[in-house]
Amino acid sequence: MTQTLDAPPTTAARRARDWFTALEDALRARDVERAAGLFARTSFWRDLVAFSWNITTVEDRAGVTDLLTATLDRTDPSGFAVPDEPEEADGVTTAWFTFETAVGRGRGLARLVEEDGELRAWTFLTTLYELRGHEEPRGPARPKGAEHGVNRDRQTWAERRAREAVELGRTTQPYVLVVGGGQGGIALGARLRQLDVPALVVDRHARPGDQWRSRYKSLCLHDPVWYDHLPYLPFPDNWPVFAPKDKIGDWLESYVKVMEIPYWGGTEVRSAHYDDAAGEWTVVVVRDGPGHEREELTLRPKQLVLATGMSGKPNVPVLPGQDVFRGEQHHSSAHPGPDEYAGKKVVVIGSNNSAFDICGALWEHGADVTMVQRTSTHIVKSDSLMEIGLGALYSEEAVASGMTTEKADLVFASIPYRVMHEFQIPLYEQMRERDADFYRRMEDAGFRLDWGDDGSGLFMKYLRRGSGYYIDVGAADLVANGDVQLAHGQVDHLTEDAVVLEDGTELPADLVVYATGYGSMNGWAADLISPEVADRVGKVWGLGSDTTKDPGPWEGEQRNMWKPTQQEALWFHGGNLHQSRHYSLYLALQLKARQAGLPTPVYGLQEVHHTR
Amino acid sequence: MTQTLDAPPTTAARRARDWFTALEDALRARDVERAAGLFARTSFWRDLVAFSWNITTVEDRAGVTDLLTATLDRTDPSGFAVPDEPEEADGVTTAWFTFETAVGRGRGLARLVEEDGELRAWTFLTTLYELRGHEEPRGPARPKGAEHGVNRDRQTWAERRAREAVELGRTTQPYVLVVGGGQGGIALGARLRQLDVPALVVDRHARPGDQWRSRYKSLCLHDPVWYDHLPYLPFPDNWPVFAPKDKIGDWLESYVKVMEIPYWGGTEVRSAHYDDAAGEWTVVVVRDGPGHEREELTLRPKQLVLATGMSGKPNVPVLPGQDVFRGEQHHSSAHPGPDEYAGKKVVVIGSNNSAFDICGALWEHGADVTMVQRTSTHIVKSDSLMEIGLGALYSEEAVASGMTTEKADLVFASIPYRVMHEFQIPLYEQMRERDADFYRRMEDAGFRLDWGDDGSGLFMKYLRRGSGYYIDVGAADLVANGDVQLAHGQVDHLTEDAVVLEDGTELPADLVVYATGYGSMNGWAADLISPEVADRVGKVWGLGSDTTKDPGPWEGEQRNMWKPTQQEALWFHGGNLHQSRHYSLYLALQLKARQAGLPTPVYGLQEVHHTR
Repeated sequence: MTQTLDAPPTTAARRARDWFTALEDALRARDVERAAGLFARTSFWRDLVAFSWNITTVEDRAGVTDLLTATLDRTDPSGFAVPDEPEEADGVTTAWFTFETAVGRGRGLARLVEEDGELRAWTFLTTLYELRGHEEPRGPARPKGAEHGVNRDRQTWAERRAREAVELGRTTQPYVLVVGGGQGGIALGARLRQLDVPALVVDRHARPGDQWRSRYKSLCLHDPVWYDHLPYLPFPDNWPVFAPKDKIGDWLESYVKVMEIPYWGGTEVRSAHYDDAAGEWTVVVVRDGPGHEREELTLRPKQLVLATGMSGKPNVPVLPGQDVFRGEQHHSSAHPGPDEYAGKKVVVIGSNNSAFDICGALWEHGADVTMVQRTSTHIVKSDSLMEIGLGALYSEEAVASGMTTEKADLVFASIPYRVMHEFQIPLYEQMRERDADFYRRMEDAGFRLDWGDDGSGLFMKYLRRGSGYYIDVGAADLVANGDVQLAHGQVDHLTEDAVVLEDGTELPADLVVYATGYGSMNGWAADLISPEVADRVGKVWGLGSDTTKDPGPWEGEQRNMWKPTQQEALWFHGGNLHQSRHYSLYLALQLKARQAGLPTPVYGLQEVHHTR
Repeated sequence: MTQTLDAPPTTAARRARDWFTALEDALRARDVERAAGLFARTSFWRDLVAFSWNITTVEDRAGVTDLLTATLDRTDPSGFAVPDEPEEADGVTTAWFTFETAVGRGRGLARLVEEDGELRAWTFLTTLYELRGHEEPRGPARPKGAEHGVNRDRQTWAERRAREAVELGRTTQPYVLVVGGGQGGIALGARLRQLDVPALVVDRHARPGDQWRSRYKSLCLHDPVWYDHLPYLPFPDNWPVFAPKDKIGDWLESYVKVMEIPYWGGTEVRSAHYDDAAGEWTVVVVRDGPGHEREELTLRPKQLVLATGMSGKPNVPVLPGQDVFRGEQHHSSAHPGPDEYAGKKVVVIGSNNSAFDICGALWEHGADVTMVQRTSTHIVKSDSLMEIGLGALYSEEAVASGMTTEKADLVFASIPYRVMHEFQIPLYEQMRERDADFYRRMEDAGFRLDWGDDGSGLFMKYLRRGSGYYIDVGAADLVANGDVQLAHGQVDHLTEDAVVLEDGTELPADLVVYATGYGSMNGWAADLISPEVADRVGKVWGLGSDTTKDPGPWEGEQRNMWKPTQQEALWFHGGNLHQSRHYSLYLALQLKARQAGLPTPVYGLQEVHHTR
């Protein structure tokens, strides 16, 4: 074990280093029991690909024993080092560490606590960041660009790029096909390009960024810039805190070009079928040509990634009277924005993010807007969320204190999902207190609030169910002061010109917007591949927390995201910009390992408890 | 004066801080003589805008006295601080410092030496980096992006951008018109945007980056990536060392979009005229519309910047027989690349960078190539130049040792031009030794080499005359081994099918390429404005070093670049990527100050000694 300190270490630091020495000794001796004994009785080892070729969390000594028994020999971990001085606070010693495995290099973060007079691991995060022999060409290893010397077979960069574009999908096949070219598909495409994995990203929109451009015009990111960087090319420091949608669209389009990501816009996937014997997908796509002529092509990738949006397919409720309603009706994802609806009566079904954003923009354009709240909603004010919820890791202050994006991502990743709500609850108690007046006004207006089943707030709702909240950027006030009218209950039916609720309330409408959310991502698999494959893979997203819309049993990780599924060679990728950035690394490494022919035995393959 | 150190300072550091305290005391007392006494008898004070509203170097105590007498009262410098520990080596103490002026904030770099038992300044660099009240919206001051709250007059980012595009040049006028949209114009455009100066960049090429895309196809940057970053958005760390021209073209195009630079492609400037009374230019441009319809527009900017390429207009020699020659002939800037010339006889007149690049690419494509060397050429190998010439400031190693681009630029700027050759000569002696075999082979092949009039090599040639060298990326070998044939002397005339030299040598030719360089940038002023204005402004570029193609008298700075000229409201901007990045800051601050109505009395306005 390497120690690289100049100053004398503190006692805590020395003991932390002793802990890693003991761990390495036990692992080298293949003494699983001794290694497990270094973990606290209640403990969590989260592994991102390094040991498990999976994204998995094991719990307590029994879990550590199980993981190591299955993976220790082939992982052959070594060289544990603690390059920076560990920090001690509130009885917890926090140590960053690096290590090597049989095939690559990893880093991790450990929290050590005193138990029975010994230092033991309470949380332990291990992550793989590169495969030996497949390091990314960055920094000192960056490409030279110019080919010096003389060469009669010289091909210029532009010629190589042009040839690649002509051949891809025709005479050469992508190893990975990524369906969906939003931030998720693009981030993964960039990583695969860097790892020299032949890949292709396809999207039905014409240009990268159109996924954002086509949304309602007042849309801005709800997450702040520090949380949103893509891999390799961070936003410049004049980038807005909350980027407007068209600006993000332009950035994504530039990013695809600069990172040289093979990307087909205007391309729809018609069908996908996996041939077990050949170990290959057959994917039929229809692509818009340069002159908008449609062309059908058959692609044969070895790996298929669905990055079609973690929200999955729109949930459009089926209601009596939808066929007789004479106005306009559409799902929030198809809402064109407010311009055409000045003076119109609009009923928005739903009371989460999209519903509030759409109600606000419609009101600003002079529409007569009613929001129909069906169930309670969790609201936090954007400023409070930024300062209390994200500030420590993702903020100007965090940057100034030396917190890099990569470190922040790992700190975030190191909190076990099992106990994450315990860290979240006090933050939301702070927000509730800080904005007490606001919440009182909302309740006085009849709005039904919640804070999640256990008071753990927005981020847990996002991880568990991906819905049920609004990050307030101003529209809540319209409900509080009655500018946007509020109704309650389920919709019973539509008439020619109104929405009728179960209690008989009739809401006159020229337009009905169904802000009714999205289904699970495996709905895409049902459409593109088959219902059988969708059911074999099961529900995507959620932790199994046994809270509303996230039924148990406990999973330990997000279901099916960024890791092997029950369908060979089928992967799901997505989430917000933070997740697209961070988890694209682990998904790309899993794909690279397979493309390079490394053995990738999966520990703890996803079990399926819910089909949709 | 603020001291921010924790560790006890060294003697050298304490003495350096005492020097700054003494300087500040003298300046506060307006005691010019005392202040000048703090400078060594041989000394150089280079000021970039902070004191002089100019780019100027004064020498020795008399120069310091002159500068301070003219500028001290109105500059009102204060708050000199040395935030980092000064470093001492070889009897020179080097100190970074910050200071304030009446209108802004500055930073600088001083080299202090022992003289008569006292510490005195040998070199002293002062630079302005921001104007108080006009700070750039970056980092903690970045824009919010989303406009939270509700607002019935809300305009989205996309709507604002669209309106700006429609109005600019029609109902609103740019304060600054930048003619030329290569890296120079683009870097300046980005700075002006950040400083909220209404500006417009126009270029005759259709798209940003076409200036590079349209060059010969094997072209790559000759300078390495660390030297080439643009402001605000550095290249990612997977960017090639020597970027291929099309990749740079794509980057520039993306950069214009991401930095929101108002940019008109497909726009030619027909005429420009300055109205002294109105303090305004009248500039007639012809612009390609979206459907390629041509439209004539009259712009009325207050400031006009020529960023048309520091190389200026192509020098095409007028030779007897050019009218009877039946082959093809063109200047190197119009050379389309080698594809059409396989098997053809090509004569390239010239033996500098373009000549070698073009000869190499033609040979690779199977042309029969002869290079005509008219005068001696300075050649350095690219690797040697990188390692010996740039490595300390611009390299992966420099980055790893904490050398930021900004710091490197200031270190570079802190070396007085008067003595810069003394620092350069030993570097080129190293290169000559390292590559001795190569130079022997070139001479054996009859190639005439030089190292600059005083042996100071490439960079001084670039600063003095912008020509006379080749950075060898491989093509020199073709001359050394005879693959590219070499001829010597001036061209006498052309026949129907050959180039005839003064000694009677006849070189059969299907194509003649005039790699004969460029004139001074004020040639553009002659064309666009008038010969009178071009002569009033005088020659652009060069130091007055009294070496070949850089006649004296000594100027102290590059003539007319990035600073006021004898023509009110006319500016020249350009140079390589390094200069475009660094000097665009000072030019942008000068323009911002004028736009904001600050007094900008110029110390040491450029005198004119040479008209072209």
